[in-house]
Amino acid sequence: MRSVSIIGTHLTNFGRLDGKSLKEIAAEACVGAMDDAKISPKQIEEFVLGNFASGNLTKQETVAPIVANAIGLANIPATKVEGACASGGIALRYGYQMVTSGLRNFVLVAGVEKMTAATTSKAIESLVAAEDREIEGRTGLTFPGFFALVMNRYSEKFGTTREQIAQVAVKNRKYGVHNPKAQFRKEVTVEDVINSRLIADPIRLLDCCAISDGAGAAVLCPTEMARKFTDTPVEIAGIAQVSGRGAAFEYEDLIGFECTKLAAEQAMRTARVSHRDIDVLELHDCFTIAEIVASEDLGFFKKGTGADALKEGETEIGGKIPINPSGGLLSKGHPIGATGMGQVYEIVEQLRGEAVNQVSNAKIGMMHNFGATGTVCVVSVLKR
Amino acid sequence: MRSVSIIGTHLTNFGRLDGKSLKEIAAEACVGAMDDAKISPKQIEEFVLGNFASGNLTKQETVAPIVANAIGLANIPATKVEGACASGGIALRYGYQMVTSGLRNFVLVAGVEKMTAATTSKAIESLVAAEDREIEGRTGLTFPGFFALVMNRYSEKFGTTREQIAQVAVKNRKYGVHNPKAQFRKEVTVEDVINSRLIADPIRLLDCCAISDGAGAAVLCPTEMARKFTDTPVEIAGIAQVSGRGAAFEYEDLIGFECTKLAAEQAMRTARVSHRDIDVLELHDCFTIAEIVASEDLGFFKKGTGADALKEGETEIGGKIPINPSGGLLSKGHPIGATGMGQVYEIVEQLRGEAVNQVSNAKIGMMHNFGATGTVCVVSVLKR
Repeated sequence: MRSVSIIGTHLTNFGRLDGKSLKEIAAEACVGAMDDAKISPKQIEEFVLGNFASGNLTKQETVAPIVANAIGLANIPATKVEGACASGGIALRYGYQMVTSGLRNFVLVAGVEKMTAATTSKAIESLVAAEDREIEGRTGLTFPGFFALVMNRYSEKFGTTREQIAQVAVKNRKYGVHNPKAQFRKEVTVEDVINSRLIADPIRLLDCCAISDGAGAAVLCPTEMARKFTDTPVEIAGIAQVSGRGAAFEYEDLIGFECTKLAAEQAMRTARVSHRDIDVLELHDCFTIAEIVASEDLGFFKKGTGADALKEGETEIGGKIPINPSGGLLSKGHPIGATGMGQVYEIVEQLRGEAVNQVSNAKIGMMHNFGATGTVCVVSVLKR
Repeated sequence: MRSVSIIGTHLTNFGRLDGKSLKEIAAEACVGAMDDAKISPKQIEEFVLGNFASGNLTKQETVAPIVANAIGLANIPATKVEGACASGGIALRYGYQMVTSGLRNFVLVAGVEKMTAATTSKAIESLVAAEDREIEGRTGLTFPGFFALVMNRYSEKFGTTREQIAQVAVKNRKYGVHNPKAQFRKEVTVEDVINSRLIADPIRLLDCCAISDGAGAAVLCPTEMARKFTDTPVEIAGIAQVSGRGAAFEYEDLIGFECTKLAAEQAMRTARVSHRDIDVLELHDCFTIAEIVASEDLGFFKKGTGADALKEGETEIGGKIPINPSGGLLSKGHPIGATGMGQVYEIVEQLRGEAVNQVSNAKIGMMHNFGATGTVCVVSVLKR
């Protein structure tokens, strides 16, 4: 299998992109990534687009060939891949597979979502479609509800305080201030978080990422060809996708997710890296508690100690493992299908030394893209 | 690249599958295919599921990991792929790519749709989502409307009569009588077709395939391992996916579709077969006129002569190229995401010598799976 590198990437702003269609948002990211790679659409051999709710929210399916047609990718295979909030990471993995196996040399991968034009109730309906509708969906449990169960159980088991968990939002929103593509660029305090509107006890508004529009894209090619296009190629050293359980009752305990653990182990084994090699991590902080849980599931901290590590600054820039220096989903927003590609953009920026909150001399980065109730997870390791 | 074979396949009945959920229908096909291959779920390394409208029609997304979880495919990557009516063919191609490249040995591919529980207006809304909503979707053009344009233009250019086109339904419904999985098992006459309810002039009700529920699945592995599982493996000798135009105005003329032509050329080149080698063809007859047009685009007949060939029996069993001996979409129904996998099942049955309308000594078969307004096409060549 061949080494695969990212030679160009682009991210649209995340947030309310009023007046722009799903196709236009995706096209902006795709054209931007091809421009960044200085590659012509004529050279692209395959297009993979991560998307979750286009049918539900924009009444647009066949979205990959339609975007391909709009941006001059004539006649090549163009496919939408879907795996809830991990759809963007899945697109990256499919593109990686085609290049590493030698089937393709140049693949464009992207992720897109347009959510903010929908009513709130329609947006929530589209989100709970990620749950198993025959089990959890019937109970009325939303995703804030699911992560409220996680927060309650985790706090009960480890004695973690509400204030400690709120600290995730404080850290990530602090970084988001500097990210021009982020939906929220205002700092928050622990008090802001725990006094914000109650969503699903104990989850408050500022514990939650937002409904957003946005798209991201990247161009992949064999590493041996990458330097013809860019002086700063970024290698996909390992990537793994793992499916998990479909509902809360299937877990022995709600303090962690096996899919994250397995995906991290596989991706790191392929990449031949250990935890201490990783300089920066973009992690799927859809809710504050999700960051703490995943930082442990990924193996950076022992189960039950993630909140203490956060408190001691170990997840800040300068700490043991800087987590979400982009501001994370809590700052950037969460355009479902685009989120995984947003992480790609941020880690590529870090490894190029061009990130807004740069981790000094970052050489190896990790992405963690998590879908539904632990139903699917993609973990990737990038190297410069 | 390695040779890839199908070692097991299964198809649910197509039609109204009342009381069965999308997950249950998909699970039935998947478990059936694994049983047919005599393979344990534990051996399956990756799952690819073609589906089009699950979000819109059943409010279920994350459908691939959820089905995987339900049928004991623990922890492996499970991904939904979408490309309108070609979603099933796309799933087959992705599975093929993983095996031919050496990334995987055992891949389960499937396609599923559940449509009949929706109201007619909701089903139509979900179908027009396959069009570019910013162009054709805005005009109110439905798929019967689009193929009405094709039928009008084709008839005008080549002088083909309404009766000749109706003959497609007569042939396919005649075969459908014998197919126990088909939605419609009653013969129709030319008079029945041209006197049936007007849908979009000149398209009549019996020119159209139906809204259906159903699923199909197949297990793929390297050909060199196939005989350990079955005495009748079927090789995927060639498969190609091509994107096309997003709207009618983009075509120079509406008498054929370049995506079909290109996909057939690529698939046949890979398979190293010519038209005369192909013994049986399952073709995407979503409307009567679509069969005539595609039989030409695939290269079996010169443009403008497909209706004459049909009239002369060249597309019947015993003719030059038997088309849709299964009864085609016009008999079987068209559960969008499942249709391509339905074609896989029929051609595998033919090459095993076990088909309901068996083509004598069929050795090589072709599938043509066509999406939206010529927006995506997958053509495959199977060999025993």
